Amino acid sequence: MEIQVLHQIMEWNEDVSAQVRDTLKEKKLCMINVMGSPGTGKTSLITALIERLRDTWRIGVIEGDIAGQIDAERIASLGIPAVQLNTDGACHIEAMSIQNILPHFVLDDLDVIFVENIGNLVCPAEFDIGESLRMTILSVPEGDDKVEKYPLMFTETGCLVINKFDMLPYFDFNLERVKANYESVNPDAPMFCISCRNGQGMEAFAGFLSEQIARILE
Amino acid sequence: MEIQVLHQIMEWNEDVSAQVRDTLKEKKLCMINVMGSPGTGKTSLITALIERLRDTWRIGVIEGDIAGQIDAERIASLGIPAVQLNTDGACHIEAMSIQNILPHFVLDDLDVIFVENIGNLVCPAEFDIGESLRMTILSVPEGDDKVEKYPLMFTETGCLVINKFDMLPYFDFNLERVKANYESVNPDAPMFCISCRNGQGMEAFAGFLSEQIARILE
Repeated sequence: MEIQVLHQIMEWNEDVSAQVRDTLKEKKLCMINVMGSPGTGKTSLITALIERLRDTWRIGVIEGDIAGQIDAERIASLGIPAVQLNTDGACHIEAMSIQNILPHFVLDDLDVIFVENIGNLVCPAEFDIGESLRMTILSVPEGDDKVEKYPLMFTETGCLVINKFDMLPYFDFNLERVKANYESVNPDAPMFCISCRNGQGMEAFAGFLSEQIARILE
Repeated sequence: MEIQVLHQIMEWNEDVSAQVRDTLKEKKLCMINVMGSPGTGKTSLITALIERLRDTWRIGVIEGDIAGQIDAERIASLGIPAVQLNTDGACHIEAMSIQNILPHFVLDDLDVIFVENIGNLVCPAEFDIGESLRMTILSVPEGDDKVEKYPLMFTETGCLVINKFDMLPYFDFNLERVKANYESVNPDAPMFCISCRNGQGMEAFAGFLSEQIARILE
């Protein structure tokens, strides 16, 4: 009986994500689900991408947080439409929340919506929110063993970003280990080493993402 | 109906944690639930504490991970009894798992069991595993806004450890902001700034913990 209930909840989530996808298709929108640990640099990366992509694409942002609106204020200060989603304790975003939030944007005026998921390397990977593309961020200070310890987040993503790469000299972080582990579970999705602080690697990553957006909106 | 099932699961968890507490009391054991984000330094801190406390207390470790046994191997190499708990996808440890694992130790030969929870700043805080004391770790690279964004983890802990404090010069991290936010939600639980790498602050923190263990085992 418990399993049946869980099954119903999962199905319900799937159904709504299909509806979200229909809306995205109808409105010619690309939705990017940005995931990673607390403090890995999700907001910083979205900010850095806005800077590089805003002349090409019309961007909106959904900021997921358990509490507070720090991140949405940071995005809105750039003149980008932003909505804060507070999950009030929940550890991930579900498709139903996205469906409720989309009408708060003028969708005809947007090409891309970044969704910053809750800082969590586990649960968000289990939930399809209707996204067009998944992006997982890992930062150098978190260590090089995370692909082995949290496999689903790396298996299910469309690309992996290694952030805070300028901090490499200060941490024991074996990039080859991460690369080998990641390629073994997700051989087709590329990996990028970047620093949101000094901009290193950002041009290449923004270029890749712009190509993906163009492909999705084709 | 969904809510009823969740309620039953929560009650069931509570019941088992009470049984775990009975076992700890009977065996004169202190169990410390160590929580924090992926890569915040949970295993490193447990290792540093073992070094400083092993002459005073007999220590065992339960290493929780979604997959793999990297951390249990690291602890076992120190000659400390260690059991790896793989949650196979689950984002937190529950009391039932602890109850199943305790018989794998010779409990009469131990005073303290550290439980390294899954790297997750959200879900583990919701689950009472029968612990005697909770310890939350936040590391400098994660940023100074985490108490506001992930409140429960900081409200429910018995102490807060700021790890990787030697990295302070390299990150924008306002310690006063963390301190003020933490004190506002949890005024009675102390905060310690440490570095597992260079040992800074470790004597004070190990001293505090040893006092807590003595108090619990009284």
